[in-house]
Amino acid sequence: MSAAEEPGDGAGSLSNDVLLFFVSTPERPEWVDRISKRFGGLRVRWVNSIREDKSVVNVSELSPELFDGVTLFCTYMPAPAELIPKVRFVQLTSAGADRWLGHPKYLEESTVFCTSNGVQSPQIAEWVIGAWLSHQHHFPRYQNYMKTGFWEGPFEQHFQDSTSLRIGILGYGAIGRQCARLATALGMEVYAYTRSERSTAASRRDDSYCVPGTGDPEGVLPAKWFHGASRDAVNDFLRQGLDLLVISLPLTAETRHVVGREQLAILGSTRKAFVANIGRGGHIDQDALVEALETGKIRGAALDVTDPEPLPKEHPLWKAPNLLITPHVSWRTDVLWDRLMDVIETNLERLAAGRPLINVMNRQLHY
Amino acid sequence: MSAAEEPGDGAGSLSNDVLLFFVSTPERPEWVDRISKRFGGLRVRWVNSIREDKSVVNVSELSPELFDGVTLFCTYMPAPAELIPKVRFVQLTSAGADRWLGHPKYLEESTVFCTSNGVQSPQIAEWVIGAWLSHQHHFPRYQNYMKTGFWEGPFEQHFQDSTSLRIGILGYGAIGRQCARLATALGMEVYAYTRSERSTAASRRDDSYCVPGTGDPEGVLPAKWFHGASRDAVNDFLRQGLDLLVISLPLTAETRHVVGREQLAILGSTRKAFVANIGRGGHIDQDALVEALETGKIRGAALDVTDPEPLPKEHPLWKAPNLLITPHVSWRTDVLWDRLMDVIETNLERLAAGRPLINVMNRQLHY
Repeated sequence: MSAAEEPGDGAGSLSNDVLLFFVSTPERPEWVDRISKRFGGLRVRWVNSIREDKSVVNVSELSPELFDGVTLFCTYMPAPAELIPKVRFVQLTSAGADRWLGHPKYLEESTVFCTSNGVQSPQIAEWVIGAWLSHQHHFPRYQNYMKTGFWEGPFEQHFQDSTSLRIGILGYGAIGRQCARLATALGMEVYAYTRSERSTAASRRDDSYCVPGTGDPEGVLPAKWFHGASRDAVNDFLRQGLDLLVISLPLTAETRHVVGREQLAILGSTRKAFVANIGRGGHIDQDALVEALETGKIRGAALDVTDPEPLPKEHPLWKAPNLLITPHVSWRTDVLWDRLMDVIETNLERLAAGRPLINVMNRQLHY
Repeated sequence: MSAAEEPGDGAGSLSNDVLLFFVSTPERPEWVDRISKRFGGLRVRWVNSIREDKSVVNVSELSPELFDGVTLFCTYMPAPAELIPKVRFVQLTSAGADRWLGHPKYLEESTVFCTSNGVQSPQIAEWVIGAWLSHQHHFPRYQNYMKTGFWEGPFEQHFQDSTSLRIGILGYGAIGRQCARLATALGMEVYAYTRSERSTAASRRDDSYCVPGTGDPEGVLPAKWFHGASRDAVNDFLRQGLDLLVISLPLTAETRHVVGREQLAILGSTRKAFVANIGRGGHIDQDALVEALETGKIRGAALDVTDPEPLPKEHPLWKAPNLLITPHVSWRTDVLWDRLMDVIETNLERLAAGRPLINVMNRQLHY
């Protein structure tokens, strides 16, 4: 997938294109230089959406001239449709497209949208498994005890290791697959849930970008597969005696509040699952979650996403027991942009050569 | 290795034996019943070393009659030599034998000592990797922010995922091998250190008890192996640009303060390693560790063991930054005794049949 493997592939065929980056990282002059030479005539513009004081630039603050002639757009935030009439390819720097739903460009079939699928998987799976282990091994309790120098006796707490426990992964995409790899190494049993049925080896494959040595691109790790688009299908999955539920779904109308009061009751009725949400805040009915945590119905939860964000200071979630909240940072890593540049370079190569892109978004399913 | 696989194996040949359990768990009547029948004549006595109020029974409080005729002894704590003259087999419920060093029975070559090697590996490796991920993903910071409902901006912290980072495992036994499996799933590179050279496939094998699907019994995960008994050899290992150092050594005169001021300086000089100690408190020079943490020389540490234990309330370690201390609990799990009963049953079978035991302790190396 690298430049070296396909010398001269499609060179020149992006000669009338303008690629605009509106991304949360400084320009990479060497990359831009190399790419401009490789695809002779391609013009690259780059805007860092993060100011020096770490505040965020809104797309409405950008000069309209920046958008002149732009055909290829690499971004997280949508831009007004009138600014990007010629855009034929959008490389999102996020895994989901929820901010684009209903956008005229998004509704236009001729524009290809690609996600950053796979770029966030290692760090987000670390976040999930780290939060799970931190809970299971009572780390927050011991961090508290450190403040007063309290050495608790060894038999005060209940400890359960992960061998023979069960992880249920709601949304078996790139992130879910790396969660599965880590869980498998822990000795857990993996149950996977997807929207469409995956009954053949080919259908279990995932062609997203994948950091070598991570994930489950062939889909061989789950002991059982479940599928469906209905709430009944989800409920059936949640009834499988899960110890850990990972929500790694895209947010769509269909998946909004996919874990609500009913689902938390189901999760609490067998092994009192721990719920980790790295999808979007809207996947969980937060009032129901507060209740489930306060009554000890489920063993705990970890949320990297809330609804809304930032979560208001007075929100009851902040005080719920057995909960970790982080401010939508699980996707962060110092090598994020190395991976994203890999994805976009791969897609430029393929665009130039007229070959199918990677990480193409399904506009019916929005992921 | 189970009874079912070897029907009648050696039955009767423990007929003159008395097996005493002095262990931190209640008697398992079904197990005792089954074992007594299987090895006709074997008498089993069981003392739970944990009282109902969770205080610990000292061996000196036991009635001397309990020890009458005891030949097989399953314990964590040593008993006075005069109480156990006939003991020919000691099944330790710990991985290390540091409490037995110098004990007359321990010095007696004809008595076989076996460890609980492998029984603690899954949970201790979870503790190590959980502590590492918790640090790398700033969980303690976010737990603190939850108290005031503070939603930090997404670009305030530096995040580094584990892909392409390097873990160095000082002591590549059963625990170290499960750390290696988890680290490999995270995309880390594994460097292993052992006392003796492991240059052949056979020498890299580990015959300890191993929970199926965990660990690295064949020794195939490390990218590089290091070895030696000298401090120079250790220092050379620590110079390899480690991001995470796991201390999973037995405590012996040779390994006391194996990580001191000099070693912390080495660890700090390249990638500012995170140090996880699940060996014994004596492995680390704690004054040097406090200094390394306070000056930010290393990125952080996690200790499940300290010197002494409990760590005194006023000890400066409690206040050191970027540190997690847990009160020697990483070995705990609700399935510990299922695994230990597996180990001891396997060893009874082998004793009865006159075959080599598993987890036999090397009395020169004390592990």
